[in-house]
Amino acid sequence: MADETAHRVVIVGGGFGGLCAAQALNRTPTHVTLIDRRNFHLFQPLLYQVATGGLSPANIAAPLRSVLKKQTNAHVVLGEVTGFDLAAREVQLADGTKVPFDSLIVAAGATHHYFGHNEWAEHAPGLKTVEDATEIRRRVLSAFERAEREPDPKVRARLLTFVVVGGGPTGVEMAGAIIELATHTMRADFRRINPATARVVLVEGQTRVLGAFAEKLSRKAQEALAKMGVELRLDAQVTNITADHVEVKPDGGKAAAERIDTATVVWAAGVKASPLGKLLADAAGVTAGRGGHVPVNPDCSVGAHPNVFAVGDVASHPGPDGKPLPGLAPVATQQGEYAAGVIVRRLKGESPKGPFRYHDKGTMATIGRAKAVAESMGFKFSGFPAWLAWLFIHILYLARFENRVLVVFQWFWNYVTRNRSARLITNERPPDARDAPKP
Amino acid sequence: MADETAHRVVIVGGGFGGLCAAQALNRTPTHVTLIDRRNFHLFQPLLYQVATGGLSPANIAAPLRSVLKKQTNAHVVLGEVTGFDLAAREVQLADGTKVPFDSLIVAAGATHHYFGHNEWAEHAPGLKTVEDATEIRRRVLSAFERAEREPDPKVRARLLTFVVVGGGPTGVEMAGAIIELATHTMRADFRRINPATARVVLVEGQTRVLGAFAEKLSRKAQEALAKMGVELRLDAQVTNITADHVEVKPDGGKAAAERIDTATVVWAAGVKASPLGKLLADAAGVTAGRGGHVPVNPDCSVGAHPNVFAVGDVASHPGPDGKPLPGLAPVATQQGEYAAGVIVRRLKGESPKGPFRYHDKGTMATIGRAKAVAESMGFKFSGFPAWLAWLFIHILYLARFENRVLVVFQWFWNYVTRNRSARLITNERPPDARDAPKP
Repeated sequence: MADETAHRVVIVGGGFGGLCAAQALNRTPTHVTLIDRRNFHLFQPLLYQVATGGLSPANIAAPLRSVLKKQTNAHVVLGEVTGFDLAAREVQLADGTKVPFDSLIVAAGATHHYFGHNEWAEHAPGLKTVEDATEIRRRVLSAFERAEREPDPKVRARLLTFVVVGGGPTGVEMAGAIIELATHTMRADFRRINPATARVVLVEGQTRVLGAFAEKLSRKAQEALAKMGVELRLDAQVTNITADHVEVKPDGGKAAAERIDTATVVWAAGVKASPLGKLLADAAGVTAGRGGHVPVNPDCSVGAHPNVFAVGDVASHPGPDGKPLPGLAPVATQQGEYAAGVIVRRLKGESPKGPFRYHDKGTMATIGRAKAVAESMGFKFSGFPAWLAWLFIHILYLARFENRVLVVFQWFWNYVTRNRSARLITNERPPDARDAPKP
Repeated sequence: MADETAHRVVIVGGGFGGLCAAQALNRTPTHVTLIDRRNFHLFQPLLYQVATGGLSPANIAAPLRSVLKKQTNAHVVLGEVTGFDLAAREVQLADGTKVPFDSLIVAAGATHHYFGHNEWAEHAPGLKTVEDATEIRRRVLSAFERAEREPDPKVRARLLTFVVVGGGPTGVEMAGAIIELATHTMRADFRRINPATARVVLVEGQTRVLGAFAEKLSRKAQEALAKMGVELRLDAQVTNITADHVEVKPDGGKAAAERIDTATVVWAAGVKASPLGKLLADAAGVTAGRGGHVPVNPDCSVGAHPNVFAVGDVASHPGPDGKPLPGLAPVATQQGEYAAGVIVRRLKGESPKGPFRYHDKGTMATIGRAKAVAESMGFKFSGFPAWLAWLFIHILYLARFENRVLVVFQWFWNYVTRNRSARLITNERPPDARDAPKP
C-alpha cells in the first residue's frame, strides 16, 4: 500500500506528459494519483495506422494500470475532471469526488480545432482518440464499398475521392496511408471498381507541407507524396466542407474557389488545448491563450502557484526563440519529467536546476512505406534512412510498455507485405444514415 | 473479370458456412456473389477472448475481400438482405438492389435468444458480434474500475460479482476467462480493491455444464471451473435479470429464488436463427422452427426448391439420431461445402453423392489457460492434452487466412504471460449512463 502521509501529487491526463511525470515519480517520497477519462495510454503518433487498418487500437494502447502496476506509489483513477480549486488544493471529478493534492500536474492534452467552423466536424472528423480512428477507418473503407455498388460514375468518382485537410505530420501520414491502401493493399479486392483510381487530395494553408521542418525536407516530402499519387493543394484555404464536397481557395484564398467532390474528409489542420486548459487558467488567475492553452512560467508552473504545473499540449511554453514550443510528444514527455523533478527537488529542500529547456533530439514524419523525412541535430535525412530512424525511435518508445514486441512484429509484417488486416468496419450507424439516397 | 454468363450462385452470409461455400466454388464454372452486412469474416469461437481483453477484434476477423481476393469468380457485396423472391430468383437488399441468382445458399447464422425476455438483453448482452464483445469488455473492465472508486463495501461486492448465464462452451469459456482476468492478469492493477476477491457465478439450466459432451468431461470441466474459483449454479433457472441483480431458482426452478447482486451479466444461454431464416422459410413455403430455423431436406435444400440451400445455424438439419445437428462451426463448414458440391455436380449433369452427413471430428471447449475438454472419435481428453488439441485445431483454421501467424504468436504470448493487453474501455456511453447513482 502507498504511504498516505507522503506528498500527494495529482496528475491529470495519462498521455505522454502525464504518464512520464508519473513514472518519473517512481521511488520518490510521493503518493501519485493519475486521473484519466480513459483506462489506457494511447500512442497517438500511430493513430493514423489504426485509421487505415494497419494496426488495431490495442496495438498502440497500453492499459494505464498495467503500465503503473509495479509502481506502488501510483494510483490510477478513472474519472473526468470538471474543475480545480487551487486554494483548497483539490481537483473536482464529475462524480462529485474531490481529489486533494499537494502538487498538481495538468497534462490534459489537446482536441481538434475547427477555427470557428464546428459544423465541419461532422463531415471531417479529426484524429485524436481510438474512436476517431475507428470512425475514420469505417468512413474510408465504406467509401470503397459504396463505390463498388454505385452505378453512377460521377457518384463513384466522388466516393473514391479522399480529402485530407492539413499538411502537418498527421495529414501527410494519413494521405500517404490512404493512397497506399488504395493502390496496393486493396488493389485486387474489388471487382467493379479499381481502387487504384482513387484520388487523395492534401490541402495545406501554408506554401509547403511539414512547415515545422526545413524547406528541403518539405520538398522531399512533397515529391514523395506526388510520386505516390497524392494531389497537393498548397497555399490553399478550405472555405467550406459539406457531406459531398470540399471548397478550396488557392493562392492564399485569393483565387477562385475549387470544388472537390468527396464523401470522405479527414481533419488534420489544427488542435486546441483541452477545455481543462481554460478551467486551470481561470482557477490560477492567468489568461488562457487563443487556443485555450495555459501560459506557464519558465519552470512549467502556472501563475502564482509554484505547486501547480501544466505540461504538454495543454500548456503554452515559450521556446528560446519566443515562439511557443510545438505540440510534440517529446516536449510533453520532457516537461512531465521536468515538473516531477521540480517537485522532488523541492521535497529535498533543493532549488530547481533552472528553467525548463526543450532538448530537441529531432523531428520526423513518415510518408509511406520506407519513406520519411527526419531532422536531428542539424542533420537532415529523407527516404529509407529517415524511415529506418523513424521506425527505430517509435519502436524504442513502444518497447517501454509490455507486449510491445507484438506491435513491432506486426509492423514489420505489414510493411513487408503491405498488409492491413485490421480493415474492419465496426460500430456502424444504421444503413439509412450510412448510405446517401440514390439519385 | 468474372464470367457474367456463368451459373450465378448467391451466398448470404460470410460466416463459416457461407465463406466455405464460396471457397468451395473456386475454379468452378460459377459466378459467386457473397453478401454480408459486415466486411469481415469473424472467428466467433474466439470472441470471448476479445470480450476479456486477450485479443483485438482484428485478430479474429479477416476482411472478406482479402480472403476472396484471388478467387476471381467471387464478388463480395456489402449489403443487408431484406427478402427472397424464389420465383423471380432474386435476393432483395435494403438499398433496393435485387441480386439475381441461379442457385442460392443462405448461411445467415444465429442471434441471441432470450426466450421471451427481451427486456433482459439490455442488462445481459450476448456474444455474437465484435460490438457485443467490445461492449462486454467495457462492462467487465468498468465494473472493476467502479469498484476501485466505490466506498460502500456492499456496492463494491456487487460490482465485483459477474454472472454468466448458460453453461455451454461459450459460457464456460467466458466464466473461465473472467476469473483468470481477475485473479491473475489484473492481480496487481488496483490499489484499493483486490480483484482476486471477484466472484464469477455460472448459471446453467441443465444438471451439468457442456451438456453436449460426455458426462465424464462435464465433470472434469466443473472440477476445473471450481478449482479456478467459479461458482456453479446447476439445474438452476434464471427468473429475472435487472441492472443490479440476477434471480436464480435452483432445483429446476422448484426451490426458493436466490438473489445474486451483480452489475455485470453475460448471456450465453441460447441462440435463435437469424430473422432471415423465417423470411426464407416463408418464401419457400415451409414452416420455420420455433427458433426461427429453416427446416431443410437431406441435401440441405429448402422445400420444393432444389436450387435453394440453407446451411449452418440458420438451418435445422436432422442428424442421424433424428435430433437437429448442433450449431457448431464444423457443421456449418461441412454444409457450406456440401451445398457448393451439389451445385457443381448438377452443373456437370451428375447427381448428388447422397444426403448431407455430418462428420463429427470432435468437439472441444476450453476452460482456461492450459485447461480444456475434448471428444474425438470416441476418445475423451481433458486438461493440458485437450488444450493443446484445442489450440492446434483453432490455429489450423485461422492459418487459412492471411496474417494469422500473428494471432498464433499473440496467443502463445498471452498464454505464457497471462497477458491481456487489449484491455481497452472504448465506445463509452456518457458518464451519467455509465455510473449508477451513488446511494
